[in-house]
Amino acid sequence: MKKNTKVSAAILIIGNEILSGRTQDTNTSTLATWLNSIGVKVNEVRVVPDIEKTIIDSLNVLRKINDYVFTTGGIGPTHDDITAVSVSKAFNLKYEIHKEAFKILEAYYKPGEFNDGRQKMVWMPKNAELILNPTSGAPGFSVENVFCLPGVPSILKSMLGGLKNRIVGGKPILSHTISLRTVESEIANSLAKVQNNNKDVEIGSYPFFHAGKLGVSIVLRSENKSKIDSCNLQILEFIKKKEIEIVDR
Amino acid sequence: MKKNTKVSAAILIIGNEILSGRTQDTNTSTLATWLNSIGVKVNEVRVVPDIEKTIIDSLNVLRKINDYVFTTGGIGPTHDDITAVSVSKAFNLKYEIHKEAFKILEAYYKPGEFNDGRQKMVWMPKNAELILNPTSGAPGFSVENVFCLPGVPSILKSMLGGLKNRIVGGKPILSHTISLRTVESEIANSLAKVQNNNKDVEIGSYPFFHAGKLGVSIVLRSENKSKIDSCNLQILEFIKKKEIEIVDR
Repeated sequence: MKKNTKVSAAILIIGNEILSGRTQDTNTSTLATWLNSIGVKVNEVRVVPDIEKTIIDSLNVLRKINDYVFTTGGIGPTHDDITAVSVSKAFNLKYEIHKEAFKILEAYYKPGEFNDGRQKMVWMPKNAELILNPTSGAPGFSVENVFCLPGVPSILKSMLGGLKNRIVGGKPILSHTISLRTVESEIANSLAKVQNNNKDVEIGSYPFFHAGKLGVSIVLRSENKSKIDSCNLQILEFIKKKEIEIVDR
Repeated sequence: MKKNTKVSAAILIIGNEILSGRTQDTNTSTLATWLNSIGVKVNEVRVVPDIEKTIIDSLNVLRKINDYVFTTGGIGPTHDDITAVSVSKAFNLKYEIHKEAFKILEAYYKPGEFNDGRQKMVWMPKNAELILNPTSGAPGFSVENVFCLPGVPSILKSMLGGLKNRIVGGKPILSHTISLRTVESEIANSLAKVQNNNKDVEIGSYPFFHAGKLGVSIVLRSENKSKIDSCNLQILEFIKKKEIEIVDR
């Protein structure tokens, strides 16, 4: 069977702490890098507050136009953790105790420590599938194409391994970077020509400051290695003509 | 005149490099922190790819439901910089050479260096207002309630000072943080009760790992200092009863 080459995802970051600027989101980068490596392209990221209606509305838009949606945050034990109830409502599913999750957490805590607060974490949409959590016990869950992960970056990372078999990606998206000691305006026209001649390769141009010096990284992205290679040669050609230095980055 | 107490903004991050995971966005946190300090609450962040239709559609949704929209990225000289043309189309404005921007960049570069690539950066929506760039010359711009800033974090930061008088915020949103040596589930029920008794204070609970130890930061946010203070006292009360240690964080 030929794999579908276009598999898409959206990421929904849930949490007032990101919108207030208090917390720097790093989960987008973690998830996007991982998804790319398994052939899933992230089409959109939204960051929304801990407001039930907003979460439900965003989820219902994103899950219909993407193959997968990954949410982060809002699955802990406190009053501001409302992802599970919101997902239940988005799918019109009962919000109830998940028996398997209950057993996992009952076994995880010492006798007598599986208190009310902790029990909140086993309330999920009916028939949700669990996403196991090797770091801190409390599982995430999925409903159809929506996968709900925690907001704490180290815990989220530890859960991705167990998810791999449940996400069917397309062809991995390959990338190649050429970093130059130049400024964007020196190469803009030549690069635009190469992009016009190579419509199947996504060419990005990113200025950087590193060790006190300006530079530009050109990033080529495609599912097709030979197209990247050919595009790369065309770029090396104009770089040579312009006598621009290639640098490590 | 009483200030409007609810002034809202959305942030639209434009750039494939964020969606691929290659680049860690930090502009959201910079903008959100700054906006909060001038009394503007960020309601939503979207990250979208360098696709004209997607930028236009997102912009047209966000600018109608928020007092302000801030875009980052896509205003440089290369082919993948399509923010200005997209904003022009979103507002049905002509995309043309901005005379003032032209003069600024003509003066900024050495004679003969204001080449085609660089001239692309002065194409803007008709009658756009410039946002001056003290770092690297090329200005950002605004149209109505949409403010377009560059993607390079250091340049973006340097441009915020010049924007301050053009954004009319509401009452500044105050916040107070209490960090505890505990886990969320120990305080979840007590904290939910305090939230129920203090509807005007947004109470967030954020677990952290620091220097090898677990903790929870409770963040209180409101425009009203006395409401935060009263809420704080109620939290300190249950913390004392539970004999939970307060820590620096």
